[in-house]
Amino acid sequence: MTQLRFGLIGTGFMGNAHAIALRSVGTVFDEFDAPILATVVDAELAVAQRCAAAWGFDTASDDWRSVCNDPAIDVVDICTPNHLHWEMAMEAIRAGKHVYCEKPLALTAAQAMQLRDAAAAAGVQTSMGFNYMCNPLVELARNMIQAGEIGESFNFRGWYEEDYLADPATPFSWRCLRSQGGAGALADLGTHLINMAEYLLGPVTSVLGSLTTIHEQRPDPVSGALRKVENEDIAQVMCRFDDQIPGSFDISRIATGKKCGLGFELYGSKGSIAFDQERMNELRLYSASGAADRRGYRTILSGPQHPHYAAFCPAPGHGLGINDLKVIEVRNFLASIASGAPVFSDFANGCRVQQLTAAIELSAAQGTWVDTRQSALDNNDALV
Amino acid sequence: MTQLRFGLIGTGFMGNAHAIALRSVGTVFDEFDAPILATVVDAELAVAQRCAAAWGFDTASDDWRSVCNDPAIDVVDICTPNHLHWEMAMEAIRAGKHVYCEKPLALTAAQAMQLRDAAAAAGVQTSMGFNYMCNPLVELARNMIQAGEIGESFNFRGWYEEDYLADPATPFSWRCLRSQGGAGALADLGTHLINMAEYLLGPVTSVLGSLTTIHEQRPDPVSGALRKVENEDIAQVMCRFDDQIPGSFDISRIATGKKCGLGFELYGSKGSIAFDQERMNELRLYSASGAADRRGYRTILSGPQHPHYAAFCPAPGHGLGINDLKVIEVRNFLASIASGAPVFSDFANGCRVQQLTAAIELSAAQGTWVDTRQSALDNNDALV
Amino acid sequence: MTQLRFGLIGTGFMGNAHAIALRSVGTVFDEFDAPILATVVDAELAVAQRCAAAWGFDTASDDWRSVCNDPAIDVVDICTPNHLHWEMAMEAIRAGKHVYCEKPLALTAAQAMQLRDAAAAAGVQTSMGFNYMCNPLVELARNMIQAGEIGESFNFRGWYEEDYLADPATPFSWRCLRSQGGAGALADLGTHLINMAEYLLGPVTSVLGSLTTIHEQRPDPVSGALRKVENEDIAQVMCRFDDQIPGSFDISRIATGKKCGLGFELYGSKGSIAFDQERMNELRLYSASGAADRRGYRTILSGPQHPHYAAFCPAPGHGLGINDLKVIEVRNFLASIASGAPVFSDFANGCRVQQLTAAIELSAAQGTWVDTRQSALDNNDALV
Amino acid sequence: MTQLRFGLIGTGFMGNAHAIALRSVGTVFDEFDAPILATVVDAELAVAQRCAAAWGFDTASDDWRSVCNDPAIDVVDICTPNHLHWEMAMEAIRAGKHVYCEKPLALTAAQAMQLRDAAAAAGVQTSMGFNYMCNPLVELARNMIQAGEIGESFNFRGWYEEDYLADPATPFSWRCLRSQGGAGALADLGTHLINMAEYLLGPVTSVLGSLTTIHEQRPDPVSGALRKVENEDIAQVMCRFDDQIPGSFDISRIATGKKCGLGFELYGSKGSIAFDQERMNELRLYSASGAADRRGYRTILSGPQHPHYAAFCPAPGHGLGINDLKVIEVRNFLASIASGAPVFSDFANGCRVQQLTAAIELSAAQGTWVDTRQSALDNNDALV
Repeated sequence: MTQLRFGLIGTGFMGNAHAIALRSVGTVFDEFDAPILATVVDAELAVAQRCAAAWGFDTASDDWRSVCNDPAIDVVDICTPNHLHWEMAMEAIRAGKHVYCEKPLALTAAQAMQLRDAAAAAGVQTSMGFNYMCNPLVELARNMIQAGEIGESFNFRGWYEEDYLADPATPFSWRCLRSQGGAGALADLGTHLINMAEYLLGPVTSVLGSLTTIHEQRPDPVSGALRKVENEDIAQVMCRFDDQIPGSFDISRIATGKKCGLGFELYGSKGSIAFDQERMNELRLYSASGAADRRGYRTILSGPQHPHYAAFCPAPGHGLGINDLKVIEVRNFLASIASGAPVFSDFANGCRVQQLTAAIELSAAQGTWVDTRQSALDNNDALV
Repeated sequence: MTQLRFGLIGTGFMGNAHAIALRSVGTVFDEFDAPILATVVDAELAVAQRCAAAWGFDTASDDWRSVCNDPAIDVVDICTPNHLHWEMAMEAIRAGKHVYCEKPLALTAAQAMQLRDAAAAAGVQTSMGFNYMCNPLVELARNMIQAGEIGESFNFRGWYEEDYLADPATPFSWRCLRSQGGAGALADLGTHLINMAEYLLGPVTSVLGSLTTIHEQRPDPVSGALRKVENEDIAQVMCRFDDQIPGSFDISRIATGKKCGLGFELYGSKGSIAFDQERMNELRLYSASGAADRRGYRTILSGPQHPHYAAFCPAPGHGLGINDLKVIEVRNFLASIASGAPVFSDFANGCRVQQLTAAIELSAAQGTWVDTRQSALDNNDALV
Repeated sequence: MTQLRFGLIGTGFMGNAHAIALRSVGTVFDEFDAPILATVVDAELAVAQRCAAAWGFDTASDDWRSVCNDPAIDVVDICTPNHLHWEMAMEAIRAGKHVYCEKPLALTAAQAMQLRDAAAAAGVQTSMGFNYMCNPLVELARNMIQAGEIGESFNFRGWYEEDYLADPATPFSWRCLRSQGGAGALADLGTHLINMAEYLLGPVTSVLGSLTTIHEQRPDPVSGALRKVENEDIAQVMCRFDDQIPGSFDISRIATGKKCGLGFELYGSKGSIAFDQERMNELRLYSASGAADRRGYRTILSGPQHPHYAAFCPAPGHGLGINDLKVIEVRNFLASIASGAPVFSDFANGCRVQQLTAAIELSAAQGTWVDTRQSALDNNDALV
Repeated sequence: MTQLRFGLIGTGFMGNAHAIALRSVGTVFDEFDAPILATVVDAELAVAQRCAAAWGFDTASDDWRSVCNDPAIDVVDICTPNHLHWEMAMEAIRAGKHVYCEKPLALTAAQAMQLRDAAAAAGVQTSMGFNYMCNPLVELARNMIQAGEIGESFNFRGWYEEDYLADPATPFSWRCLRSQGGAGALADLGTHLINMAEYLLGPVTSVLGSLTTIHEQRPDPVSGALRKVENEDIAQVMCRFDDQIPGSFDISRIATGKKCGLGFELYGSKGSIAFDQERMNELRLYSASGAADRRGYRTILSGPQHPHYAAFCPAPGHGLGINDLKVIEVRNFLASIASGAPVFSDFANGCRVQQLTAAIELSAAQGTWVDTRQSALDNNDALV
């Protein structure tokens, strides 16, 4: 394998996070050649140039389309605002590039399907920025489930709660606009949870949602005038996996006190697993075996026996951080490009999450269950 | 106030728990005269006599109807199997007795309404055995909510999960029969949660439930033959309080690893509260005030500043137990009888919980929302 | 076995706690005949009479000496201020009564030895009010250690921290006087910890302590004038068990924020155990076996498989409270009287704790290690 | 400020960790020019060359002395085995380089004093690899203490427990040799704790230690023959800060179940702070103000309001990892070099920790307290 040349589009928070990961991945994971930080793109050339210098990119540009079509670029990495993802990713796929895109893949299910299908047709590898799935302990959980350690799955309870919009005085932003943010808490937070649920348990086959906007207006950051919020603060979802296993998702962007409250409890016939991202280095495991008076939830601390951890630190319990998950995400994408095997989460996953989001919105509007098997999603014209 | 004479019907686990509480309440709470343990009733006289001797009752009986009508009895205390509650409570009310009844009040909403209305008409005081509501920290939570310390309520997430039927080899019992247990996890566990939710936030005004039976058959304890389970293992509920605040209830009797997992998280504009009965001496409080870099969920340990605690122990953090909650429940009932003011939870609460249970079952069958305002409940003939 | 007749001396907090336990024990533990609450004693007859009525004692008295010598009394139960314990217990032993005494046994090691030896000579059963040892999970811990589940013991770290004197404005009380309280935090809190350590691991064979008084003066509760505090706020101890296993005790009555912070961590070759009384229904267990990537501390919730729990509640995880430990303490004493076998903690344990307290004080004064094997304690004239 | 050129000596675990940090620091912290990874050194040139290629260093070398004296090098970064630190650091100081050295500074107090004094005389900046001090929440704790938020300090309890040598079958290694590892758990783990204690509270002025070797022999990794372990598994320390505040340190490398159990509880007149590295993104704070029935330990999650966090992530509660602390450590050293102001932890801190280690060993050998004020340490010939 040779070094891959990355073109990074976007220099905000996520652009910086990607740059940190691209800088580190080769040093952390010796088995991969370090990627080349070829070009960084910002709509303002001066910003791009400043970032190129500070972050170690070879060149800077203000023309994302040229970068997508630059023969010297192997991978296009999209960290721009959500409403630009579709157009940029489509251009990169057309140019035959591998594409790495922050979530969401698009603002509508229809657009997401186009990207999924275009990437498949082009034969390029894709990756989505669902970095929570890259937590060694989440991968451990999946491995345990797939190995049958939890037995038959009985019930999944998931949640993703933050409080970044809990205060009604927090100004109106693009996140409150359907045209730029799409759905509200469901799109911003819920997509991580839904994707994690399917990562662990497989397809959600039906949903019934309920959406609530508590703060119906917010002050414009410039004028201070109250503007109407166009999407939900809270999304509640009941669902089924594989037509039978009940699940629930509780999603909120106004959960006062919660900072990164992404978690789940999975109950099975042989045991249970619980996780919370606010304690991302802990996985709680209950085993329904052994003497009854010795049973209890145990807290497994992340360590070098778990996937990828040893590359960061040889000692257990010392702790990974959120940015390390992004390094693992890049590592997994490099492996995917090298092998040609899809990564979880690729554009197909990103598309599915977008379709599920639309299905939840539809179910909430109707107050009834909606079928979310893949064929049903692909053929439901009401999902937009 | 003079000493009240109790007639206790039923000598199983709950009968014993009531006896312990009746023995202790006067010693714990000096301000109340100790109740007189007048009569204990069991269908088998020998059992009643043995319990009377061991538990300190004056007399024993195998005739519950006579005890209900005995002029020397002030309070009838019903700890029999669920399907007997309605008949016994009705008899006691007819005889003008105050009535203390373990949950559920009845097996159907219609029966529960009869009891509610009969008690009101008779002017007797009633109490239900929803002892979790008597936790000093749950009362503290309610006081905080009512005093506005949490601000405007945004969202309530509640759960009650145990694992007593998680193992499919656990034999069939009366709990699996609709005619004796009514609903499944919803009736046995969910009623505590629903009652607690209304205790904290006021009326649930609409519900949408989903019920799942994972273990569809269980072995008969005698023959070993598989019998069909008639009610749900898992109940999921989305709801609204006061027509606007979203809530969810996750209820399971097969939640492997959970032993008394009754809890909630309530998010509000000024702060949040979280509780879990497995750590019943802790209430978690987040206050959205003060310097942002000093905020966090705090763990309040129960102590003598909290309701009723000081009667048990003058020192904070030393811990109450589940049986102490029953002592508080009896204390509250004694206070209710003395004052004539209703206690939370009385038969009206018990009736409402029964109606809500029926409404959740109806919504699950229909896959749609059901109106649960009191007038709607009282006039919905589909609730059975 | 017939019913034992108890004479309770003292009507303060501990007297009330004993009364609650005496009232409940027969109802909780069916296998024991309920004790008879024969007489309650207070220096003021009116107080004794009020308590007798409220708590269900047959008679009241203001003459503790008569009660000790009353042929109708089987057990003398001493809940008076510490400086009265020795005289009362000695009188009761002389009269051939079984004796139940709140800690401390006496104010000096010499007095404690007298009581230990007198009780042994008289052949009466004794019990000390070290109720934390009666926690089902502490008994479970001991059983696990003795069964070898933790393997060879490596290290014991214990602590007992509260904050009842953290505020320097808290008034001077008898606890601050050597003549009434003896040592400070070491006597009030440390004795529970030291006794628990020996309950779990066996004899402490040497100690080295350090004592600190942070608040050297406190206001007199009446005059407000500052008075000199005569004993320590903080006691630190290093020790050895069985001449080889290192241990440490951290003891404080000014540990701001701690309410009942009695706990330990025990490390062994096969696993580890951790406990904290503030979460008294949880025992944390680490097992150094099984797959390395599945290991972690597990939290065992107290339940009916653990000692004594089932008598209170048939369901796991529902939680016992501090007063339930006192019921178990009484139960264990009833069993001891019935069988003639000593209970842990009896007067020999109480004496040993008193001697260890004196040895720690001596080591702190000298700044050197002190031998605490039993023979060394009994023959060290410097221990007072 | 211009870019600093680093020469890294050592390519093991810590060398890799330093390389990751050096690669990332400029991208994470925009205000600093990224350091130049000039040269990496290993005793085997091929290894150095492989690491240079993989980690992004310009050149490779097998001659550490040349690198120390290379005019093109600004900073010498020492990640070699402990017994080499002294010689390399001394050479670098002589050459006028700034020096970054993993702990311990040396194997003896005398050597550490030489380095401390040589660095001061040369006027170079130094930094030690005590990365736990770089945790934003530990810095927050120090800020709170220094701002008086905890009030007067009453008591400090610290511990550092791991279990990497808990199993007696774990082979003998250089850590078990005094000539290569120096002291045992005290040197490897205790130094982090002691340094953190002084970082928070200032100088330890006296100590009394106790050392225990539980596993006295371990198998040679090659021959399997049992070899004598030359240093302690467990170190217990009582100490004083500022001649009055009592402290304790519990240190073990055989604490079964603990993986990175570095923590403390600090009690003060206005509140308390608790920390544990296994939950490195949480700081627990108790405030002894406000209504008594609302008090409790709160858990502060690390976030962008805390020192340095925002450079990694703009969102609170998302979590930093152990490697991020190393990035902060490098950042702080870059700032120190730019400003000329010393960093905590520099060689003076490293020397002091080495002296305190020797003092603890001396006190343990004598069984008495040892004075550890700086002048006493510098003039105590018994410290080796």
